[in-house]
Amino acid sequence: MLNDLVAALDIGGTKIAGALVDTGGRLLARIQRPTPAQESAARLSAAVDEVLGELTAAPEWHRVRGIGIGSAGPVDAKAGTVSPVNIPGWRDHPLVPDVRERVGGLPVTLVGDGVAIAAAEHWQGAARGRAGALCMVVSTGVGGGLVLDGALQPGPSGNAGHIGHISVDMDGDPCPCGSHGCVETIASGTNIARRAHASGWRPEPGGDASAAGVAEAARAGDPRALDAYARAARALAAGIAATATLVEIEIAVVGGGVARAGDTLFTPLRHELARYAVLPYVRSLALAPAITGTDAGLIGAAAASWKSLGVTVA
Amino acid sequence: MLNDLVAALDIGGTKIAGALVDTGGRLLARIQRPTPAQESAARLSAAVDEVLGELTAAPEWHRVRGIGIGSAGPVDAKAGTVSPVNIPGWRDHPLVPDVRERVGGLPVTLVGDGVAIAAAEHWQGAARGRAGALCMVVSTGVGGGLVLDGALQPGPSGNAGHIGHISVDMDGDPCPCGSHGCVETIASGTNIARRAHASGWRPEPGGDASAAGVAEAARAGDPRALDAYARAARALAAGIAATATLVEIEIAVVGGGVARAGDTLFTPLRHELARYAVLPYVRSLALAPAITGTDAGLIGAAAASWKSLGVTVA
Repeated sequence: MLNDLVAALDIGGTKIAGALVDTGGRLLARIQRPTPAQESAARLSAAVDEVLGELTAAPEWHRVRGIGIGSAGPVDAKAGTVSPVNIPGWRDHPLVPDVRERVGGLPVTLVGDGVAIAAAEHWQGAARGRAGALCMVVSTGVGGGLVLDGALQPGPSGNAGHIGHISVDMDGDPCPCGSHGCVETIASGTNIARRAHASGWRPEPGGDASAAGVAEAARAGDPRALDAYARAARALAAGIAATATLVEIEIAVVGGGVARAGDTLFTPLRHELARYAVLPYVRSLALAPAITGTDAGLIGAAAASWKSLGVTVA
Repeated sequence: MLNDLVAALDIGGTKIAGALVDTGGRLLARIQRPTPAQESAARLSAAVDEVLGELTAAPEWHRVRGIGIGSAGPVDAKAGTVSPVNIPGWRDHPLVPDVRERVGGLPVTLVGDGVAIAAAEHWQGAARGRAGALCMVVSTGVGGGLVLDGALQPGPSGNAGHIGHISVDMDGDPCPCGSHGCVETIASGTNIARRAHASGWRPEPGGDASAAGVAEAARAGDPRALDAYARAARALAAGIAATATLVEIEIAVVGGGVARAGDTLFTPLRHELARYAVLPYVRSLALAPAITGTDAGLIGAAAASWKSLGVTVA
């Protein structure tokens, strides 16, 4: 078992990454291809095949016992299919059967990308050793996953913890998901930039018009930029507090591009959390930035695979 | 084991009930006292002692293996204390040690009243056989509990599933809990009546001014009464959808006084659920009225006790 490996796939709207991962969480091989996100199902599958082709050609491949996949969601772990919102060519795409066939029938575990991030943070990051945690990615979208009773809780379909699509403003803006006032409609990087722009903020000529640019302006004291981050912090706080109230987590871990704004996000987020996380059993909730970086999706997919193989790694 | 019993206590703002319960969920003795909710901790404890006194005097008492308590929350299952919002005399009151001493050291299990209702509905009600469920009480307040992976999930402190205090309107009214726009601020019976009154609705002279009276007016087509129920339905739907999105439940079970309005609540609730529960893995969520009645708290407290004794009853 010390020599055993799993293969991990991280499938997102931008890149498809793959690696071989040992029980210590070390990446032995790492491959990456751009996601042909707007192309046909066949082109997408060919890109996955390329990554798998390089992995199976690795000298360590004979030690691989299973495959873990973290995919942009929603996923359907029961059916083994994926329908990523931002990869329109794949709707109910049978990713698990395809991958299983490609790797000679090894067991394949599928989870949503937010669940993978939670697995990674619980294994090697800020949620390590925690019995209950919500781990989030705040980026172009907002995703997350849950650790309960000391174990990853992917839920029956592999999507649990999807905090980006809970409504914290029930009369609020329509969300592309079809609901209204979802956390993502307020707190995603895209929507932070949108709000700053709507209030008249513009970057310096040639400057960064994205949420990162808004963060820079907020650090310089621009009130419109500060407001956009305060609003995002409030939506995140309401969502985190709702999760803590419902399932009694000890810590909320926030990663992703927007979290890189550091105190620009975390200072208002702590302030707002104190306003929403008020019940006695919720009040002591900890908040921390994510530790695992670019490879979090791969590490988490590997963790999910180890878990389904019955190997305890976290 | 077939002859074993547990004792159950249901402690609410109005009554303190007790019973002896077998593994089939049958109540062998049932006692009830009014809760001296506004009196001292000593008077409250005396009322609990009276109920326990009658239970321990029952001829079946020697068959009792444990005690389950469902209490108005918040509770602290780890510390064994309760701090019910509507029983001000008890703050961090050591209910579990007190009861344990009173019953000669038998194991005592404490859960919140919402968790107890969920246990009862999972054992004998509308959530029977379900792997994932949210069971709610919509009454003077709004509470709930969760079933996940086929088992009651009280959470470490015994309060999980407390849907009444998640924010679905983050800029909304302050809630007595200290947060803002909680489900309870919109959907409780008290707040349904408040909204109808604020829009000018009044019952017939001598009529019912409560949520039940508003329901009657809604059935007669009064637009202000219909609006109050529509608003409550929206808040409940947003909260239920948030729960389903976070923890992947199969069914939401709604009981309590407000649910007795029947279609007056359930018709707009189904309509609003279709607006908020939209992700593929959430869309097929079932909705049902609760089945267990007045004794749900006792049945659920008994279920929690059986569970902690390692006896599978649900």
